[in-house]
Amino acid sequence: MRLDNTARGLYPIAPTPFFTDGRIDYDSIDGLTDFYLRAGATGLTVLGIMGEAPKLEQSEAIAVATRFIQRAPGIPVVVGVSSPGFAAMTSLTRAAMDAGAAGVMIAPPPSLRTDDQIVTYFKQAVEAIGPEVPWVLQDYPLTLTVVMTPGVIRRIISDNPSCVMLKHEDWPGLEKISALRGFTREGLMREISILCGNGGLFLDFEMERGADGAMTGYAFPDMLADVVRLQKAGERDAAHDLFDAHLPLLRYEQQQGVGLAVRKYVMMRRGMIASDAQRKPGAGLTANAKAEVEYLLTRVGRIDSRAVLGRE
Amino acid sequence: MRLDNTARGLYPIAPTPFFTDGRIDYDSIDGLTDFYLRAGATGLTVLGIMGEAPKLEQSEAIAVATRFIQRAPGIPVVVGVSSPGFAAMTSLTRAAMDAGAAGVMIAPPPSLRTDDQIVTYFKQAVEAIGPEVPWVLQDYPLTLTVVMTPGVIRRIISDNPSCVMLKHEDWPGLEKISALRGFTREGLMREISILCGNGGLFLDFEMERGADGAMTGYAFPDMLADVVRLQKAGERDAAHDLFDAHLPLLRYEQQQGVGLAVRKYVMMRRGMIASDAQRKPGAGLTANAKAEVEYLLTRVGRIDSRAVLGRE
Amino acid sequence: MRLDNTARGLYPIAPTPFFTDGRIDYDSIDGLTDFYLRAGATGLTVLGIMGEAPKLEQSEAIAVATRFIQRAPGIPVVVGVSSPGFAAMTSLTRAAMDAGAAGVMIAPPPSLRTDDQIVTYFKQAVEAIGPEVPWVLQDYPLTLTVVMTPGVIRRIISDNPSCVMLKHEDWPGLEKISALRGFTREGLMREISILCGNGGLFLDFEMERGADGAMTGYAFPDMLADVVRLQKAGERDAAHDLFDAHLPLLRYEQQQGVGLAVRKYVMMRRGMIASDAQRKPGAGLTANAKAEVEYLLTRVGRIDSRAVLGRE
Amino acid sequence: MRLDNTARGLYPIAPTPFFTDGRIDYDSIDGLTDFYLRAGATGLTVLGIMGEAPKLEQSEAIAVATRFIQRAPGIPVVVGVSSPGFAAMTSLTRAAMDAGAAGVMIAPPPSLRTDDQIVTYFKQAVEAIGPEVPWVLQDYPLTLTVVMTPGVIRRIISDNPSCVMLKHEDWPGLEKISALRGFTREGLMREISILCGNGGLFLDFEMERGADGAMTGYAFPDMLADVVRLQKAGERDAAHDLFDAHLPLLRYEQQQGVGLAVRKYVMMRRGMIASDAQRKPGAGLTANAKAEVEYLLTRVGRIDSRAVLGRE
Repeated sequence: MRLDNTARGLYPIAPTPFFTDGRIDYDSIDGLTDFYLRAGATGLTVLGIMGEAPKLEQSEAIAVATRFIQRAPGIPVVVGVSSPGFAAMTSLTRAAMDAGAAGVMIAPPPSLRTDDQIVTYFKQAVEAIGPEVPWVLQDYPLTLTVVMTPGVIRRIISDNPSCVMLKHEDWPGLEKISALRGFTREGLMREISILCGNGGLFLDFEMERGADGAMTGYAFPDMLADVVRLQKAGERDAAHDLFDAHLPLLRYEQQQGVGLAVRKYVMMRRGMIASDAQRKPGAGLTANAKAEVEYLLTRVGRIDSRAVLGRE
Repeated sequence: MRLDNTARGLYPIAPTPFFTDGRIDYDSIDGLTDFYLRAGATGLTVLGIMGEAPKLEQSEAIAVATRFIQRAPGIPVVVGVSSPGFAAMTSLTRAAMDAGAAGVMIAPPPSLRTDDQIVTYFKQAVEAIGPEVPWVLQDYPLTLTVVMTPGVIRRIISDNPSCVMLKHEDWPGLEKISALRGFTREGLMREISILCGNGGLFLDFEMERGADGAMTGYAFPDMLADVVRLQKAGERDAAHDLFDAHLPLLRYEQQQGVGLAVRKYVMMRRGMIASDAQRKPGAGLTANAKAEVEYLLTRVGRIDSRAVLGRE
Repeated sequence: MRLDNTARGLYPIAPTPFFTDGRIDYDSIDGLTDFYLRAGATGLTVLGIMGEAPKLEQSEAIAVATRFIQRAPGIPVVVGVSSPGFAAMTSLTRAAMDAGAAGVMIAPPPSLRTDDQIVTYFKQAVEAIGPEVPWVLQDYPLTLTVVMTPGVIRRIISDNPSCVMLKHEDWPGLEKISALRGFTREGLMREISILCGNGGLFLDFEMERGADGAMTGYAFPDMLADVVRLQKAGERDAAHDLFDAHLPLLRYEQQQGVGLAVRKYVMMRRGMIASDAQRKPGAGLTANAKAEVEYLLTRVGRIDSRAVLGRE
Repeated sequence: MRLDNTARGLYPIAPTPFFTDGRIDYDSIDGLTDFYLRAGATGLTVLGIMGEAPKLEQSEAIAVATRFIQRAPGIPVVVGVSSPGFAAMTSLTRAAMDAGAAGVMIAPPPSLRTDDQIVTYFKQAVEAIGPEVPWVLQDYPLTLTVVMTPGVIRRIISDNPSCVMLKHEDWPGLEKISALRGFTREGLMREISILCGNGGLFLDFEMERGADGAMTGYAFPDMLADVVRLQKAGERDAAHDLFDAHLPLLRYEQQQGVGLAVRKYVMMRRGMIASDAQRKPGAGLTANAKAEVEYLLTRVGRIDSRAVLGRE
């Protein structure tokens, strides 16, 4: 199974489950994967930024990716391979593809500034991993500090036939989706898949601008799948109604730094993973924050029963 | 009227109204001020970042501040005086105070990195403007790139008796409010007023953490005033209900860069200002974006009738 | 007198002389200007970053520029007009040109990232100041954090006929000069003047790569003028011999932050200005640093007698 | 052999030698190590930033470190272990110490901003690698963008008994050395070893401020060793004479980005390594740049015969 530009739907960004002592919790990987499949995931993305990938050794990273891939044989799994150097990126890519990954995802390193630097970087990355490996371009200026114009994305797409998807998480980013889709309509750029990240904060409108789906890790992937489905079905108001019901919690989860603690906490509460532990460095939730999340869950639960959880 | 640490409620961040040719629209300043007073503002903040202050010449800045002050004689007006150098900061401060401002607001320049650099900067700023001018410390890392720990804020408060308020817009920032209030409870820091910015994105919980009110520019200041009032009255659920009804639009307005265009557009639609024009550089809204804002207004209007506007 | 692309030689970056109480020392402006003229300056640049321009109020800035211009009626004076907004940039430009400036210098604001953002900014700046004002493009990534490729500089030159000079201070930057001169040789870019800054650290080779001269503020402008002259005369070894004799001191002066203190101290020691005072914020030299500078002066003095100064 | 705070002299930052096809050239590691020992190195630092460490896979990194260690059994070898996460840092540290390293070097990740964030990071790093591993704190703001005050360095030293050395490469940094030595003199901080980096640009004065030696990679380590020795012997003028003779070339080598190409080129010309190849991404020298380096070598050779090389 190879990733291509027809990918759509929901590719959740999977967290890496840990025990409180920092060991990887492989059983939770299985349970989490099953949950994603039930939730309507059409693919899966592992070892992203929110998957705590930089905290893993390479051998661990390969083991984690492999476990996800083996548990989800029916859907394409994308593996994040961003690395400080091309040697590590290449060996991780090979290991992931050998393990059955459908493709890899690459983010630009923060040092890139000019258009040409960005374009050159991805050319060299593709030379390093090989032109036969399908890959996802991650565009996340808020965290990565690299700003790509629509024109630069077009140059990258044009230079590299193996780039089949954009993980769109520019913020603000609605006009960028429109610009890219406009390029394709005008015959200036081949069609690519666009899945949206940035915690899902604008998924409601991103779908209307032409996105193909979601690639983010909000603790209610089932909601994300529903919004994508409803928008594709033309049920705009229903999509917004569901999205808006979750927005107070989604916004809370989207906080930089503390967001992953919120996400893992809710996932633990929903039984998706056994523990909300993060590897260091990584902050936990204060009692205040936990109480706020529980309050938000209760409020979401008035509209979406999936947020009605048992006692903490 | 002098700003002091008992300030609370709503201090809207006022935009500067322009005509489409870039001239300042003083009549709209009057109308806008009247609107704020009716909306329940207990104070006013002018010439902030979202007030396009850097686009004004100093003489214009003084004229704008003066107009707001004269139209709102009953409430304290805070004037943003952040400048690349202390000479300009000092002369603007003097002009503002002479015109009747209640105090000034100072943001740290982006070059500051270490704790000591930050503390020293504000000491020098106070030497420059004079120790008798009440001032507001602006803490906005997302835009200003300067990160102040609670400990650094405490040092600034302790060094400078004239600092009476924190404009809190760290993101995430809930724990910071709790930490600062904890300092005061434990007798480690004198009491200051904390008003919250960052577009209002976390105002619902910020009030619960101990904030005194809002200092932000969302196009529905009346909603902000209501949320502050409801939280102060202990009507938590009602506060969240109202806040959540606005959150989809508030989030849309909070987009970096394009956010001000959204804000001014909605203000124009509500009749608060005559035109949504910005001085260059400043992007307008695309047709797509306008349609999205109108859709969001309609949806907010189902809960809050103030969002029901006539035809565009 | 209007600046044009035939400018060459030495345009010293003039410091702004202050008294120790922070007032501007206009008499020192006169003496400094006279010194520059005797040193062989073919032009003059005032209100640059090292001229402490951001620490001046606009009225002061105009007064300082005017004083320099009036004292140097025979040579073109370039006035730095970089400002946070176009309104201030425009009014300062008008005042400077009215006072007799030959042109202005504009640096990009640090927020610019993509090629298009940079190109657009300068287009808007020229709209703001007017297409008839000759101007210098400042390219100083180390301090400004904006990186312009040769291609971007070419676009700016091509968009704006009034851009007649590049203040080249990229670091490293030798290949950039070669690339730009190559564009012109190949008919891809009109000819511009290139004067070099960055403290003069690579002036020796920059001249060999095709630069037209120096625009920097090293405390021995007479040495800079000599190096430019010797290189133009083909006396390569002599140019390097003189440059190398100064390099230990020049390097010492080029330190970020503390560099201006070194520069003003040496200028004071040479009688170019009355005091080495800076406006706040600005650090002075420690006793250790002063002793090191004196030691370096002694060593330079073994080759270049202009560095032999009386007792401190 | 364990690194401790008595370390002094010259610890060259070793480049990693590659063949033109990107493979590691282990024979050149042997030759290079022999050269360093003959040049007077009292220690060795491998896998630093200029050692292209991020371009190596971890297995390669371990092999490179091991080869250096085995070839230099008589001197302590410091291994750079900076990593995006603590898991990789820990495993690399263990492998290096098992292979006989004397200690490791850790640089702060660019995301750190506040004093507390920096202090916490190093505490967690020491927890990760173990308190028994001697380590070097790298302080290099120009490249790493993390600014540590002397006070923060003191906190790190105080928190972590295993921190025995500072790789000082702040710029400007002379006052920092004086401040740290002052702390120790006043009994406020235990004594640490301070070796200086930043290409050696201020080694002449750093020694006079109290540094213990050099830890940098200039292509003439023999000159660095001599300057350290002469300064320690009180032969100040002789130290500066030698240093100044090299400064034009040293400055040329210190250019960001292109500097490593200059360094490897000169090392190849001196027979220290077989090829000046870098792994991608990494630019080579243009013909112009090579000619400039050759010219500089000729000029250095007039004073220091070690720079007289055969025909290119």
